Amino acid sequence: MERIIGTYYIETPYDPEKAAAVLAGEQSSGTFVAVPGETEELKQRFAARVEDVALLETVDLSAIPGAVSSTGKYHRARVKVSWSIENFGYNLPVMVSSLQGNLYEITQFTGLKLMDIELPSSFGQQFKGPEFGIAGCRQLTGIAERPLIGTIIKPSIGLTVVDTAAMVQTLADAGIDFIKDDELLSSSANSRFEDRVAGIMKVINTHADKTGKKVMYAFNLSGEMDEMLSRYETIVKHGGTCAMISINSVGLSAVKKICDQRQLAIHAHRNGWGMLTRHPLLGIDFRAYQKIWRLAGVDQLHVNGIKNKFWETDDSVVNSIEACLTPLFDQKNVIPVVSSGQWGGQAFETWRRTQTQDLLYMAGGGIMAHPMGVAAGVAALQQAWSSAVEGLTLEEAAATYPEFAKSVEKFGDK
Amino acid sequence: MERIIGTYYIETPYDPEKAAAVLAGEQSSGTFVAVPGETEELKQRFAARVEDVALLETVDLSAIPGAVSSTGKYHRARVKVSWSIENFGYNLPVMVSSLQGNLYEITQFTGLKLMDIELPSSFGQQFKGPEFGIAGCRQLTGIAERPLIGTIIKPSIGLTVVDTAAMVQTLADAGIDFIKDDELLSSSANSRFEDRVAGIMKVINTHADKTGKKVMYAFNLSGEMDEMLSRYETIVKHGGTCAMISINSVGLSAVKKICDQRQLAIHAHRNGWGMLTRHPLLGIDFRAYQKIWRLAGVDQLHVNGIKNKFWETDDSVVNSIEACLTPLFDQKNVIPVVSSGQWGGQAFETWRRTQTQDLLYMAGGGIMAHPMGVAAGVAALQQAWSSAVEGLTLEEAAATYPEFAKSVEKFGDK
Repeated sequence: MERIIGTYYIETPYDPEKAAAVLAGEQSSGTFVAVPGETEELKQRFAARVEDVALLETVDLSAIPGAVSSTGKYHRARVKVSWSIENFGYNLPVMVSSLQGNLYEITQFTGLKLMDIELPSSFGQQFKGPEFGIAGCRQLTGIAERPLIGTIIKPSIGLTVVDTAAMVQTLADAGIDFIKDDELLSSSANSRFEDRVAGIMKVINTHADKTGKKVMYAFNLSGEMDEMLSRYETIVKHGGTCAMISINSVGLSAVKKICDQRQLAIHAHRNGWGMLTRHPLLGIDFRAYQKIWRLAGVDQLHVNGIKNKFWETDDSVVNSIEACLTPLFDQKNVIPVVSSGQWGGQAFETWRRTQTQDLLYMAGGGIMAHPMGVAAGVAALQQAWSSAVEGLTLEEAAATYPEFAKSVEKFGDK
Repeated sequence: MERIIGTYYIETPYDPEKAAAVLAGEQSSGTFVAVPGETEELKQRFAARVEDVALLETVDLSAIPGAVSSTGKYHRARVKVSWSIENFGYNLPVMVSSLQGNLYEITQFTGLKLMDIELPSSFGQQFKGPEFGIAGCRQLTGIAERPLIGTIIKPSIGLTVVDTAAMVQTLADAGIDFIKDDELLSSSANSRFEDRVAGIMKVINTHADKTGKKVMYAFNLSGEMDEMLSRYETIVKHGGTCAMISINSVGLSAVKKICDQRQLAIHAHRNGWGMLTRHPLLGIDFRAYQKIWRLAGVDQLHVNGIKNKFWETDDSVVNSIEACLTPLFDQKNVIPVVSSGQWGGQAFETWRRTQTQDLLYMAGGGIMAHPMGVAAGVAALQQAWSSAVEGLTLEEAAATYPEFAKSVEKFGDK
């Protein structure tokens, strides 16, 4: 029978082998005493199994509250635990409850992070993954090789539909590939969702008729289940190509239901992610996280960006991009959404470290606040990327392109 | 215009007033440069506002990775930030994205936890809250005053439907009020959901016909959206009174959709909760968390238990019980589900500290592994509670009741 394997980074004051056994017990048949009915045969078939324990560093200070060490030492280890898929079949929420769930409660661990998930091959048959992914998003936007250049409507919240549509017109004229709502806006007092879709898609459709280029707009439909389905239909009806969801706030089952409609590319915004990963020894690593959401079927997934304005390191961002671009079964790959404080200057380092253009590269202020205007902001982004790929340095690109040069002037110290 | 207020426990190497302003900026109109269109009027109406900053301790070591202090000092504070409800209306996921969301990414914070949410009164009109709550669950089970005594089917996973139904028969005969699936089981290879409901409800209905007492069984319907709705109908069709959901794994929008059916009491299992709260300076406190889920409409919510087998302190458990029993608008109160390593011995301390019997008091091994059998296990729990409420000590109760005395013998050192 196929098994699913979770890899954990753990810390414990006890022998890591024994702590791992507690984990496996809690996450299968466990209670605090032996109970009738727990036969050997049943355990053999359904019990979680410790597959591997690799000892790592020992430290003097525990990472999070839990059991106190009598020796003052806390041991870290990489632990692999497996479950038979007979336990939950192809049920993502129960898979999550098994692989994460109560194990964060176990006092024997003073640190526990789910680092990766190995999925058995039948998951590849059961879950279709992204409907569009990289190839589909390229096709929808008509961009063959370079990164899709995107922006976020700012101010995040407060603009009227008319204001927003006018901004979309400016951005479309400027040659943008992709625009998104901010995650703080779904339907607000002066920007009702349905009105916004109608207003914006009119601009986008007219622009597409005239130029042949259809801007992809990610409308944030996050909300209650029925509301989201109705909003989804609104986008489809108006000829939109993309819907955005705040995946952590909406949750797995509802996101999967939206992805299952398979008519729109799904832009997965991971706001709230910091809570789940920021501590090195608590929560879940992006490598595990992105697999769950790819199984659910999202097409675009946020990964932060090089030299971002947030806490995340460049190494972590590079790892996240690599994770998204690593094939999962024969599914389409999810497109990494690079954003946060991006303005084009980071294109060079992003290219150097990832060697990929399969990115949705987002700049908010970097485009909207460009000194020469929005069209120059878009042009500067494209110039930065083509220069990076051609092997130019930032300085050489600035010397070649006036729009990018102005970006460097304004944003260069950011 | 009504505002919603989030209270945060934060840590920062900077002036907490300034860090709080960054938070408010990021969670409303913010990007890293000023953008056109962000007028004063718009800011006044839609911007998040820092309401209060109360300085707390200063420490030498940062709680989580983020900005490094130039002075080596990190300042902690309690910060209140408010948003106009015009920003998101009555949309729970967007409320969560505003109150939590990207603010966990802000590098200026080396610790950030959402401690509480103050909801404006119109939320009380918009959200009905629990359909059953404490009063409704008492009515469904026919228990007027004492805690509902419940248990979990163990082994958690692996029993056949026939085995499980037999165990339910034993428990019903023993006088149990409530039984639940384990969160690791929804539909497994040898316990298909629909079969399990049919098998168990047959036992429960027959028992109810004979005795007038209908045991409440929480079937774990966690899964995909349509699957959950179909499972819900299965429970209703067979005369069940309760459905269980792993709320963190399933997510907010799908849980709300299930609660909105309003025919079954919803047992909210919070597995995965440790990830969200175990670190004192990251994530969300139970006081804020339970409000979100009460708005969604859950009837029963896990709070761990006194002297539990997990990491959580008794103080934290007591606070959680108190939070559940604090009225939210004129909604029915959610019933706190006390569980984890409980066997009756903890009834005394639970009563002493909470002075409430409005609890669903769960014991797994404490009932199932009682030396005199399951009926004695249930009796022992009831004896413990009635003794505690009457003012007896544990020792006095053990001297009075042989079943409870055996519990003390077997579990007393646990």
